[in-house]
Amino acid sequence: MIKIHQNPEKNTWYQFSQRPHLETFTLNELVKEVFEKVKLEKDAALYHFTEKFDGVKLESLEVSHEEVLEASKKISNELSKALVQAASNIKLFHSLQTEKKQIIETEKGVFCWRETRPIEKVGIYVPGGTAPLFSTVLMLAIPAQIAGCKEIVLCTPPNKDGKIHPAILFAASLTGVTKIFKLGGIQAIAAMALGTETISKVFKIFGPGNQFVTAAKEFAQNLGIAIDMPAGPSEVLIIADKYSDPDFIAADLLSQAEHGTDSQVILLSNDYTIIEKTIHSIQVQLEQLPRKEIAIKALENSHCIYFSELETCFEFSNEYAPEHLILSLKKPKKYIKFIQNAGSVFLGKYACESAGDYASGTNHTLPTAGFAKSFSGVSLDSFVKKITFQKINKSGIKKLGPIIEIMAENEELIGHKNAVSIRLNKLQ
Amino acid sequence: MIKIHQNPEKNTWYQFSQRPHLETFTLNELVKEVFEKVKLEKDAALYHFTEKFDGVKLESLEVSHEEVLEASKKISNELSKALVQAASNIKLFHSLQTEKKQIIETEKGVFCWRETRPIEKVGIYVPGGTAPLFSTVLMLAIPAQIAGCKEIVLCTPPNKDGKIHPAILFAASLTGVTKIFKLGGIQAIAAMALGTETISKVFKIFGPGNQFVTAAKEFAQNLGIAIDMPAGPSEVLIIADKYSDPDFIAADLLSQAEHGTDSQVILLSNDYTIIEKTIHSIQVQLEQLPRKEIAIKALENSHCIYFSELETCFEFSNEYAPEHLILSLKKPKKYIKFIQNAGSVFLGKYACESAGDYASGTNHTLPTAGFAKSFSGVSLDSFVKKITFQKINKSGIKKLGPIIEIMAENEELIGHKNAVSIRLNKLQ
Repeated sequence: MIKIHQNPEKNTWYQFSQRPHLETFTLNELVKEVFEKVKLEKDAALYHFTEKFDGVKLESLEVSHEEVLEASKKISNELSKALVQAASNIKLFHSLQTEKKQIIETEKGVFCWRETRPIEKVGIYVPGGTAPLFSTVLMLAIPAQIAGCKEIVLCTPPNKDGKIHPAILFAASLTGVTKIFKLGGIQAIAAMALGTETISKVFKIFGPGNQFVTAAKEFAQNLGIAIDMPAGPSEVLIIADKYSDPDFIAADLLSQAEHGTDSQVILLSNDYTIIEKTIHSIQVQLEQLPRKEIAIKALENSHCIYFSELETCFEFSNEYAPEHLILSLKKPKKYIKFIQNAGSVFLGKYACESAGDYASGTNHTLPTAGFAKSFSGVSLDSFVKKITFQKINKSGIKKLGPIIEIMAENEELIGHKNAVSIRLNKLQ
Repeated sequence: MIKIHQNPEKNTWYQFSQRPHLETFTLNELVKEVFEKVKLEKDAALYHFTEKFDGVKLESLEVSHEEVLEASKKISNELSKALVQAASNIKLFHSLQTEKKQIIETEKGVFCWRETRPIEKVGIYVPGGTAPLFSTVLMLAIPAQIAGCKEIVLCTPPNKDGKIHPAILFAASLTGVTKIFKLGGIQAIAAMALGTETISKVFKIFGPGNQFVTAAKEFAQNLGIAIDMPAGPSEVLIIADKYSDPDFIAADLLSQAEHGTDSQVILLSNDYTIIEKTIHSIQVQLEQLPRKEIAIKALENSHCIYFSELETCFEFSNEYAPEHLILSLKKPKKYIKFIQNAGSVFLGKYACESAGDYASGTNHTLPTAGFAKSFSGVSLDSFVKKITFQKINKSGIKKLGPIIEIMAENEELIGHKNAVSIRLNKLQ
């Protein structure tokens, strides 16, 4: 069960910040083997590995237009409505992230600006398993569509019958996904990184996955393919004061704990009673949870920490750098300024993590394992490049030229200096 | 010498897009050894490797406040003025990249926004060698300062006398660099990635370097330290029409070619005479170039390509995805819309690459080796994280709740559903 600590010394905090480590090094040989075969045999290798790893002999890798069209009939009306509404909120929030062009004249006659261009070809991986992770389709394909990516390739493993869950196909049909392939695991990442007869080589690969997918994405990154961010198990940190509702906190902790046995949940509070009540409520709610066994294991990696001061909770949280940070506080806005490192923040007692996981509009692909110290979550920015531009006229080079000449000369790059001198000379 | 091609078939273009490959895999053993020793022996290992690799026995790793103060007296007045002006332009351009907070109500009672936070601790690497690369100090430390990074650590190798060039120290003094260390190569990257008694472990490492530094940055990345971008040799692609000046083009090509023997320069034109005249001018200008031998070798990796149509030049350029793209065209603005992949673009005959390398205001840390297809150059964004926030009130959860419940249920994550249901129930 979740452990309780009281006012731990600062030099012991790192112990609570240790995440269960994803061991990918041992998989490297397998990953290398799959990549080599895909490079050599292309599509044939993909059929081979799908039969070997997924136990299904496919006739075609690509999902047909008919299969996509049929999907909408196979899911319930209420689910399709919910997906449409969630997609609309996600579109709204991510559309706001487009950057307007601003031209600045840094010196008279020297004009500088940035322009945004989509990454032309992107790949999205959606894991398989018993449940269809259609929410990940929305979270990745919608910003790709807003960015204007020309090719949006989606790979997701088929079930034993060689099918993809209709909810995934329906979600894809709400976005700009250009092609969907029945392909999972290492072979899916290899196909998108290297390209085959039917699957385009993409420039950036997005999406969560198990340790095989994670190791394959790392391998692809070392080959020069960009990836969304490093992977790690999911996590939440909640800071609660005496005004918070222990039942809500317990539900939020459990919603995180049910993700996987390697998930981690942390509760910080300056009120010991809240901690006790939350633990009680966890025990009650656990009984009803279908994924109880998973949650129990995750709770073993998890901590409740009492700190006398709320400020210390924030200090700890910044050191932990949680993927999800819930401020279950009476006046949460007052504390925003203390937040340095976090993936996504939820304010107030009604902002549960699942709102951001599914439908409020923010992205759920977020930095885990402390990467919130240096990474942002997926946003429109993840699907574009920003190119700098400069236009310099005669008066600009006259003003800027002598500065460049002196600097280039002192860096002993006379060719750089000449490029200016030759222009200044012709202007005289 | 540079090769000439005429209207090559599209399926042969990839040959001209091959970059000289940086072979880092063979260095992995050495990198691993240095990292292990630095992890174990910390500062002692740094003194050891500095003696071994740089041939200098240091008394202190950190540059003293006095050394920094003295630096300004040791450089010429005109260089310090040039640095101040360049710094001012770089500040102006990068300040423009701050994002304003925008709150959007995606559903009634559901408020979402992003806030920007600096990456708290960043490391900047500035290579050594005969010439002091003070421009790199400005390009990396200025956006770090604007972002508000708390610790900005600068590592650069000492010379045989255990000193750092005063121009580097002066450039650092113009920015927010908090500590400067006399430390180069793999050991510098290891120190910033792992931390020692005197050097802080940072969250992200920036800066160019030789193959040792590149391999060390890759190694650090696999340990979970963010890096600015993958490395590769520098390159320029120029698109010129008949109105352009062959002497300017030649000077620009040479300013790139002098960087290193593995640099690459490409000239595309729809006017064959311009190509011929440029090659003639290269031969003339080469004679005066101190780094002639380097430039000659780089020109051997380089290409002039005649295409009948200007549009085809842009098609080729997008496939090549150059670090620097110069449009030496009469009406360059007309062609901006054709640009998909590039690091930084220079418009018109007076916008030479060295302007952006030093002083116009744009950043010179740019994606090479085709990475412009998926990466942007360094900007203010490189030094911050964008955290998403959401605040949901009672009417918000009432509106959004049922959507989340349906989605969570269909993804078989009942804990996620419960986090909403428990709130909706208490509201009834």
